[in-house]
Amino acid sequence: MRNYNISIIKGDGIGPEIVDEAIKVLDTVSGACDFTLDYKEYLMGGIAIDETGVPLPPETVPGVLASDACLFGAIGGEKWDNLPRELRPESGLLKLREELGVYANLRPAIVYDELVNASTLKPEVIQGCDIMVVRELIGGIYFGQPRANDGNKAYNTMVYTKDEIIRIGKQAFEFAMKRDKRLCSVDKANVLEVSQLWRDTMIELSKDYPEVELTHMYVDNAAMQLVRNPKQFDVIVTGNIFGDILSDTASMVVGSIGLLPSASSGDKTAVYEPIHGSAPDIAGQGIANPIATIESAAMMLRYSLGEEKAADMITNAIKNVLKDGYRTKDLSSFDAKEVLSTTEMGSVIAEYS
Amino acid sequence: MRNYNISIIKGDGIGPEIVDEAIKVLDTVSGACDFTLDYKEYLMGGIAIDETGVPLPPETVPGVLASDACLFGAIGGEKWDNLPRELRPESGLLKLREELGVYANLRPAIVYDELVNASTLKPEVIQGCDIMVVRELIGGIYFGQPRANDGNKAYNTMVYTKDEIIRIGKQAFEFAMKRDKRLCSVDKANVLEVSQLWRDTMIELSKDYPEVELTHMYVDNAAMQLVRNPKQFDVIVTGNIFGDILSDTASMVVGSIGLLPSASSGDKTAVYEPIHGSAPDIAGQGIANPIATIESAAMMLRYSLGEEKAADMITNAIKNVLKDGYRTKDLSSFDAKEVLSTTEMGSVIAEYS
Ligand SMILES: CC(C)[C@H](C(=O)O)[C@@H](O)C(=O)O
Ligand SMILES: CC(C)[C@H](C(=O)O)[C@@H](O)C(=O)O
Repeated sequence: MRNYNISIIKGDGIGPEIVDEAIKVLDTVSGACDFTLDYKEYLMGGIAIDETGVPLPPETVPGVLASDACLFGAIGGEKWDNLPRELRPESGLLKLREELGVYANLRPAIVYDELVNASTLKPEVIQGCDIMVVRELIGGIYFGQPRANDGNKAYNTMVYTKDEIIRIGKQAFEFAMKRDKRLCSVDKANVLEVSQLWRDTMIELSKDYPEVELTHMYVDNAAMQLVRNPKQFDVIVTGNIFGDILSDTASMVVGSIGLLPSASSGDKTAVYEPIHGSAPDIAGQGIANPIATIESAAMMLRYSLGEEKAADMITNAIKNVLKDGYRTKDLSSFDAKEVLSTTEMGSVIAEYS
Repeated sequence: MRNYNISIIKGDGIGPEIVDEAIKVLDTVSGACDFTLDYKEYLMGGIAIDETGVPLPPETVPGVLASDACLFGAIGGEKWDNLPRELRPESGLLKLREELGVYANLRPAIVYDELVNASTLKPEVIQGCDIMVVRELIGGIYFGQPRANDGNKAYNTMVYTKDEIIRIGKQAFEFAMKRDKRLCSVDKANVLEVSQLWRDTMIELSKDYPEVELTHMYVDNAAMQLVRNPKQFDVIVTGNIFGDILSDTASMVVGSIGLLPSASSGDKTAVYEPIHGSAPDIAGQGIANPIATIESAAMMLRYSLGEEKAADMITNAIKNVLKDGYRTKDLSSFDAKEVLSTTEMGSVIAEYS
């Protein structure tokens, strides 16, 4: 029987609640598909600060590296916001990404027919929309050196090497090949040197993918076009900070941030997590929507473990659960037949799987 | 009789057509309000490249500096996109901004009741929305040094000094004082040192404006919130590149980019321009919407010349023209009674003024 080791990072706020539901669903489909999953928990974020004094304790990276894939909830909260930068929850997450080398952040934004009214955008603008945002995750201005703040002047460096751009570009072209073969590269090449290298490199790479139609868009225009006509996009590839902004914009096309999964992958262990945050304001109330995390678990099965069938079981279950009118509180005003708690939603999806 | 010198930069694409209509309207209201305007034209952008070989000929900056205000159309076009960076139209614009020291870019995004259906966002989400984006315009990553691209590695520097942040911050707080007294500062302080200085400085400044409620938002969240619930915002203040992205997002809240004016001001001559581009694809067809430029001319009267009454005449005229169902082609599907050409729209607004 196939067996996989999964590292689990529950994190802060609603993190533990939603990860528990994803595990519930994973256990159901693994049983049905003849494989087993062994989980090992590691600390990161605020809880790690509270328990060990640092946001990324020394065991976490080796533990994740030794696993086949990592399922992660969310981190952060006001409680830790006034610590020195290197001791904040976010620093733990950034360090984890860097040490795992997960350079490709994949954020699918797919509009469910059942929830076409959940967006603030008009239904006709978003119906059928299916975008994949491919964001570079361990370079750019997030990690660029030098960086400093002396209280009178502060700076950061947005930097990319050609190799880094090729690496993420290849991923994006490969995705485009499996989808509608349209890739839009987003940059600010009319102003930034680093964007000019990005654009030139994408154009060079495109010669290896003659079937893919490559277009370019300035980041300001892309932010606008995602609201104006999101259906024009198939795959979007962009750098770290632009991807941070645009993938959040894309999530609003879908409407509920509680539905959106993500994968961060490189050459080692990949990390799967919902795109939403730790939502401390609703933690512990049993009202968090676990679907984004359960979708992330499905991405994990598909991309890291090759368990396509089990992944399909989950994604179909989610579709059917939504079709049958089950909703968590965040979506209760969109054609809800029954409003469920976090654990009830996990159980219903497990049942449907 | 009061007399003002206005420098005019028509630029490329639809630039000349829309500026001509703004001048038509300006001449009407100045006549009615007992002041005169003398116009002098200067070159910038693609047309300057074609006629003089450089995007910002040496006469332009001194000419604008000698004027009371500058009215500008738009620049750029594919034709010039493959020139070396320092010879492209955009470089002329960036250099003009820098030399004029116009550090504050003001972009109001106001939803007209008459066009509440023109946005892709649902009417109930945007009705009554009135946001002022205050973008820092001559600092940050646009102008930061060092910057380079050797074909294998490229970088730019996002830098702010405390003085630069105070300068733009004051403008934003002053605007908030005249409006609903709510200021949202947008940064990425959880990742960037330069954003931490930004945030700390805004907090310091807020002590001088006890009546203004200052909040902070990360840029990814702000992009999302502008789509989710734009009415939560009154004044937004942010750095150059974040402001570039967010003000374009805000324009989609309003729906038609053909309606949105902007002002760029510092301690010398201010520049007024529509936020849309030069739209070469529709240039010369007489279908461009001149309203954003005419609104920009109204902002010029208000902020640079102190001619409030004339400014009000224009803004009221635009409202009434829209209410009476006059539309240019871009808005022809939104409750149009009559679809007008560019010059007809200018004439109707002049008549209503
Ligand atoms: C928490 C923060 C550091 C992070 C980022 O900016 O990458 C988050 O916004 C994300 O997109 O995963
Ligand atoms: C044309 C370009 C350089 C410019 C900018 O990025 O500032 C434009 O997008 C704007 O917002 O005025």
